[in-house]
Amino acid sequence: MKIEIYDTTLRDGSQGAGIDFTDDNRREVVVALDALGISYIEVGNAAVASDLRFLSEAGSLGLKSATLSVFCATRKPNSLASDDNVLRAAASCAAPVAAIVGKASRYQVEEVLHTTPEENLEMIRDSVSYLRGAGKRVFFDAEHFFDGYGDDPVYAVSVLRAAFEAGAERLVLCDTNGGMLPDVIGVVVTSVRQKLPNAALGIHCHDDMGMAAACSVEAVISGAVQVQGTVAGIGERCGNCNLDTVIPVLQLKLGYQCVTPDQLRSLTRTARQVVEAVNLSFDEHEPFVGGYAFTHKAGMHIDAVRKRPRTFEHISPELVGNSSDTLISGIAGKSAYAAMLEKLAPELRIKADSDEFAAIIAKVREYESRGFQFENAEASLLLVVREALGIRRDPFRLLTFRVIIGEPISVNPSSLSAAWIKLAIPNGDGGSREEFAAAEGLGPVNALDVALRRALSPVYPQLENVRLSDYRVRVLDSASAKTASSVRVLIESTDGQHVWRTTGVSVDIVDASWQALRDSVEYYLLRLSAI
Amino acid sequence: MKIEIYDTTLRDGSQGAGIDFTDDNRREVVVALDALGISYIEVGNAAVASDLRFLSEAGSLGLKSATLSVFCATRKPNSLASDDNVLRAAASCAAPVAAIVGKASRYQVEEVLHTTPEENLEMIRDSVSYLRGAGKRVFFDAEHFFDGYGDDPVYAVSVLRAAFEAGAERLVLCDTNGGMLPDVIGVVVTSVRQKLPNAALGIHCHDDMGMAAACSVEAVISGAVQVQGTVAGIGERCGNCNLDTVIPVLQLKLGYQCVTPDQLRSLTRTARQVVEAVNLSFDEHEPFVGGYAFTHKAGMHIDAVRKRPRTFEHISPELVGNSSDTLISGIAGKSAYAAMLEKLAPELRIKADSDEFAAIIAKVREYESRGFQFENAEASLLLVVREALGIRRDPFRLLTFRVIIGEPISVNPSSLSAAWIKLAIPNGDGGSREEFAAAEGLGPVNALDVALRRALSPVYPQLENVRLSDYRVRVLDSASAKTASSVRVLIESTDGQHVWRTTGVSVDIVDASWQALRDSVEYYLLRLSAI
Repeated sequence: MKIEIYDTTLRDGSQGAGIDFTDDNRREVVVALDALGISYIEVGNAAVASDLRFLSEAGSLGLKSATLSVFCATRKPNSLASDDNVLRAAASCAAPVAAIVGKASRYQVEEVLHTTPEENLEMIRDSVSYLRGAGKRVFFDAEHFFDGYGDDPVYAVSVLRAAFEAGAERLVLCDTNGGMLPDVIGVVVTSVRQKLPNAALGIHCHDDMGMAAACSVEAVISGAVQVQGTVAGIGERCGNCNLDTVIPVLQLKLGYQCVTPDQLRSLTRTARQVVEAVNLSFDEHEPFVGGYAFTHKAGMHIDAVRKRPRTFEHISPELVGNSSDTLISGIAGKSAYAAMLEKLAPELRIKADSDEFAAIIAKVREYESRGFQFENAEASLLLVVREALGIRRDPFRLLTFRVIIGEPISVNPSSLSAAWIKLAIPNGDGGSREEFAAAEGLGPVNALDVALRRALSPVYPQLENVRLSDYRVRVLDSASAKTASSVRVLIESTDGQHVWRTTGVSVDIVDASWQALRDSVEYYLLRLSAI
Repeated sequence: MKIEIYDTTLRDGSQGAGIDFTDDNRREVVVALDALGISYIEVGNAAVASDLRFLSEAGSLGLKSATLSVFCATRKPNSLASDDNVLRAAASCAAPVAAIVGKASRYQVEEVLHTTPEENLEMIRDSVSYLRGAGKRVFFDAEHFFDGYGDDPVYAVSVLRAAFEAGAERLVLCDTNGGMLPDVIGVVVTSVRQKLPNAALGIHCHDDMGMAAACSVEAVISGAVQVQGTVAGIGERCGNCNLDTVIPVLQLKLGYQCVTPDQLRSLTRTARQVVEAVNLSFDEHEPFVGGYAFTHKAGMHIDAVRKRPRTFEHISPELVGNSSDTLISGIAGKSAYAAMLEKLAPELRIKADSDEFAAIIAKVREYESRGFQFENAEASLLLVVREALGIRRDPFRLLTFRVIIGEPISVNPSSLSAAWIKLAIPNGDGGSREEFAAAEGLGPVNALDVALRRALSPVYPQLENVRLSDYRVRVLDSASAKTASSVRVLIESTDGQHVWRTTGVSVDIVDASWQALRDSVEYYLLRLSAI
C-alpha cells in the first residue's frame, strides 16, 4: 500500500532555531527531495513574501515526481475568504496544492481566536471552498486536533467534517504541541476513521516527547495515508517528525510503499545534503542515516556482525544507502562511488571495480577517517580523486606564511589581523618564481585569503574575480582530545558565475582554513585548464 | 506506582562513538545521578579492569538513594561459573547488584555462541546461582529477547524462566538491535507477564528506529517495572533509551513515580551536567531538557503562549527544571538561581527577589543570549555575578597583544606560534605598572596562555603553579552567520590541587580563548584574595 510523504522542511522546518533558508538552499532542498521520491513538498507560507517569490520560480525547477504545496491559514473571523490577502496569494500561486490550517480545538478557538465554535467551522468551510474554487487541491491541517479531541471529540470531528464537506482532499491530524503518546494517536485515528470512513487522513506530529516517529507510524497502522515531517526532524522546539526515520520504518518494517527501493538507497545522501545545505550539524547518531547508525564499537558486536550481520543489525544498511564499514561517510557503497565519479569527473572514465576505482575509494576513506566529509565539498573531493590517481598538480608551493592576530575584537572592535605569504609558482620552463604578498583582514582567515590571492595574481590574473562567499566551521568529536579538538572548515567560493566548495581538517583552525583556501584556488585553476 | 530507573550511561553508554570516561567523569556522573533519584546505577563491566578499579572506590561516594550495579555475562559453554574470572570479579566487587546478560534467542545461541539451547539455559542457571550464592542481587538482561521471541517464543520464555528460577530478581527484556516497534513491545511484554506472572520485568531498548523511548513507555504500560537507559540517550549506534525523555513522560503524562517532584525539577541541570562531563555536544532540541524544547519561534505561537501557556506547551517546563523564556540556559527559574548563588558565592548573601538577585539574573541571561553557557564554567559564572553586583575587580588591564601563527602544521609539524602581550597591572598606590612578555606555543592559544602568565608573574608569583588542564571548543549555531560562526571555548585550569573552569564566546576563536584565559587568572587571584 502506498503512503504519501509530505515534506515540510522548508515551511515548518524553518521554524527551528537558527534556521533561515536562502533561495539557493530552497532550490537545492526541493530538487533533492524530488529525486528522493517525496510526494508533496511544502515550499512556503503564503503569508511570507519571500516564500511566494520562491514559489513563483519553483514551478520551473522541472520536478519529476513531487507536487508543490503552499501553506496558509483559514480566513479571520467575520470576514470573507475572497477578501483575505493570504488566501488570495495562495490561490494564485504556482503550487497545485494548498495546505490550509484551521483550529480543531474548542479551547483554542475560544481562548486564542476569540470567536465562536460555529464561526470557526464557517471560516474553515469558506476558506476551503474558496481555494477549491480557485482550482487548488486542498489539504486541511487540523491544528491541535488531538488535544481538541481529548477536550471535546464531537467538536474536533465536526471541524474535520466541515473541511471534508467543503472539498478538502486530506484531513491532516496535527499533534501541534507534541505531547501525545503513540497509543493515544492510534486510538484517536481509528475512531476518526470510523466517523469519517470516506476521508483520507494524514498525520503531523512534533517531537516534544521524542515520539513523533512512533506516533506517525502508529497513525499509519491505524489508517492514515499521509505522513508529514521534515528531513532530520528539523523544526521548532524539539523538531518535527523525522522523515529519515519514518520512511524506512514504514517501507522496510511494515511493507508500505513510500518511495522506490532505488530512491530509498539515496536516503542517507539526501538527508546529509539537505542538512548541510542549511549548515546544521548532522546528527551522526540519527537512525538509519547517521554515520554511527550501523557502527559497532563493542568488540563482541563487531565480531558477531562479521559472522552474521543479522545478529546485531536490524536492517541491512545498504537499503537506505548507509553502510556499516565506514565511520562517517555520506558516500557509501560502490554504486554510490560510481555515481559520484560519473557526476564529478566523467572525463576520467573510471570503471567500477578497476584498480583506479579501488584506489579512489581507499583514498577517500583515508581522508574520511581523519574527519573529512565531502558531501558539501565536491571541489575538494575532485582533488582527492585526482590525488588517488596520481594526476593532481599543485598550482603553487607554499614556502611559508605568517599571520598576526591583533588585540581581541572584544577589546577593540576595529582590530584587524595581518598575513604575509611566500609561494613558489612553477613557470613554463620547469623552474619556479617566488611571489610574496601581505594583507590585512577581519580575523586570520580573511587576511590569509586576501594575501594568497594577491600573491598568485601576477601569474594567475583569473583569480581576481574569485571571492569567498561562505565560511563554516565545525568542531569534530572532541571527547577524546584533551588539548586540541579537530575542526573541519568548509568554504564556498565564487567567481560571480559559478560556486564551488572546499574543505580542510586540522587541530588548528587556521591550518584547516588554509587547506580549504588552497583547494579552492587549485580547483578553480583546474577547471579553467590553467594548470 | 513506582517505576525503577536503571541508568547504564557509564556502561552501555560508553559504547557510544568517541565516549571515554575518566574516573573523574565517572565520579561526577554517579553523584549527579544519585541526586536525581535514579534507583540503580550500572557503573561498569566486570570484564574491564578500570571499571572494577572505579567500583572499588564508588562504594565510598556516600550515595543517598542509588544502588550500584556491575555488568557481566554468563559463563562460557561447558565450564563452571565458579571458575569464570569475570563472574568472580563481579561476585567480589562492591556493587550490591549484578546485571548478568545471557542470550534469549535460539538463533544467537546457535550461530554466535555455537552451543546448544540446553547448554545456554544451564549457563544462565549456573551463573545466576553463583552470583546469588555470593550474596548479590541479580538482574538478568535477556539479550535479543524480542528478536528471539519472534523466532521461537517458547525458547525465549524458557530462558527467562531459567534465570527467574535461579533467583534473578528482575528479568530485563532487551531489544538489543533496536529494531522493534512499540506495538510489538507491548504485545510481547503482555504475553510474558501472562506466562511468568510472578516475575518483575524490565525493559532495555536501543534507538535504531528513533523509538526507544516510545517502546520503553509501552513496556511500562504493559507491565514492566524497570526502565534501563542513559542520560541524553548516549550509546552505541543511535544510542540507548533516553532517560531524560522517559522519566518525565512516565511521571508527568502517565502518573507513575520515578523520582520525587523536586528531583524531577533538577532533570534539565543534571542532563546538561552529565553531557558536559563527557564533552559531548548537548542536543538543544532534546525533548524536555533541551534549550529549545520550550522555545517558540513562530510569532503566532509566542503570542499564544503568553496568553495561555497550555496552548502551545504540552507540559509546564518548570516541572523538569527547564523554562520557556530563555534561549539556552541550564540555569532556569528563580529557585535554581538561588541554589546557584548559595553554592557559588554564599559570602555574598544574596536574597531571592532582592534587586541584586534580579540584576544577577538579567546579567546572566544577557551573557547567555550571546551564546555563553555556564553549567561547566562556574568560575566565569562567579565573575559574571560579581560584575552584575558592580564588585568585579580586574587584576590587570590588557593594553595589547599580538599572536603570530607560523606556517600550517600540515606543512611543517614542528611549526610554533608566538605571542606577545602588554598589560597594565594596578599597584598599591592607585597607579599601575606595565608588564610585557612573549612566548612560543603549539598554536596561538597555547602561546598566548604562556605569555599571559609570564607577564603577570612578577606581580602575581602565585600564578606560576597554574596550568591549563583542558581546552574545549564548540561551534555555536552557525546557520545564521554567513562569514563567521561564533565559537564557545571552555578551559579548565589547575594549580595542582584545585580545578576551575572558565569560558569565552566570540566570532574569533583566539578572542574567545582569551576571555576564558583572562577569567581563569582573575578567578584564581580572587579565590586567593590576591585582588
